[in-house]
Amino acid sequence: MTARRPPPQAALFASPDDIEAQFYEALQQADLDKLMAVWADDEDVACVLPGGPRLVGHHAIRAGFESVFANGGIPVQGDKVRRVSQPSFAVHHLLVRVEIGPAEAREPAWVAATNVYLKTDQGWRLLAHHASPAMATELPEIGEPAPSVLH
Amino acid sequence: MTARRPPPQAALFASPDDIEAQFYEALQQADLDKLMAVWADDEDVACVLPGGPRLVGHHAIRAGFESVFANGGIPVQGDKVRRVSQPSFAVHHLLVRVEIGPAEAREPAWVAATNVYLKTDQGWRLLAHHASPAMATELPEIGEPAPSVLH
Repeated sequence: MTARRPPPQAALFASPDDIEAQFYEALQQADLDKLMAVWADDEDVACVLPGGPRLVGHHAIRAGFESVFANGGIPVQGDKVRRVSQPSFAVHHLLVRVEIGPAEAREPAWVAATNVYLKTDQGWRLLAHHASPAMATELPEIGEPAPSVLH
Repeated sequence: MTARRPPPQAALFASPDDIEAQFYEALQQADLDKLMAVWADDEDVACVLPGGPRLVGHHAIRAGFESVFANGGIPVQGDKVRRVSQPSFAVHHLLVRVEIGPAEAREPAWVAATNVYLKTDQGWRLLAHHASPAMATELPEIGEPAPSVLH
């Protein structure tokens, strides 16, 4: 099935943003090979999906997403990214908009995600993904300056 | 209230484990100063508590824990730590046991936590904490070798 295109593992991700884009595209497309290609080559890569158990290692992560993708792709859109960038690693905090429910009556839900990226000899890779249910409506960002009460 | 002891800010954390221990002690003791002392001096420090909004920055994190601590300390016990250690940062994945409910009928619940640590001039500091509800009973760790069916 994947023989017609170069193996995704060959991609050299130039930045954490590139790999993040590939991660969420893979979720949208239910593309397991593409999804697995973003992870670092480290036995302790780890993933927590909303409401799911902790997945540690490539085998467990693949099995977890295989199960998720059995229902098709996930209409998911990363938003409100906060980035902490260092030479060898980066941490991104996202609020992710997910469409849930049957196709004819989809409703948006929100997920808070923390993605940790590692710079490797093969380029940037995902080291950890932790996502959990956030509020059903868009979150007010605590930590932003409070809006003035004077208009 | 905190005048009798040296300011917690003066502590030089020798390792991510030290700072992790202080973080969970502060939760148990509802000690806001101790809790705030573990964070890195970075405006994008971020914290997601189970079921709560994303908190970005020291001010928001302090306000969030102030609200949590209004109900007292949290009987919390880190467990099953998986560590990824690099010279300048570390990522720890924990399953955290929390006692919930009234004192006379406490029941254990589980939280999956991802803690990201940064090595700074002041020693190791917490850069990100993401915690979310896990299963009500202890999680089987997916990713461990499956137990043999032969006894």
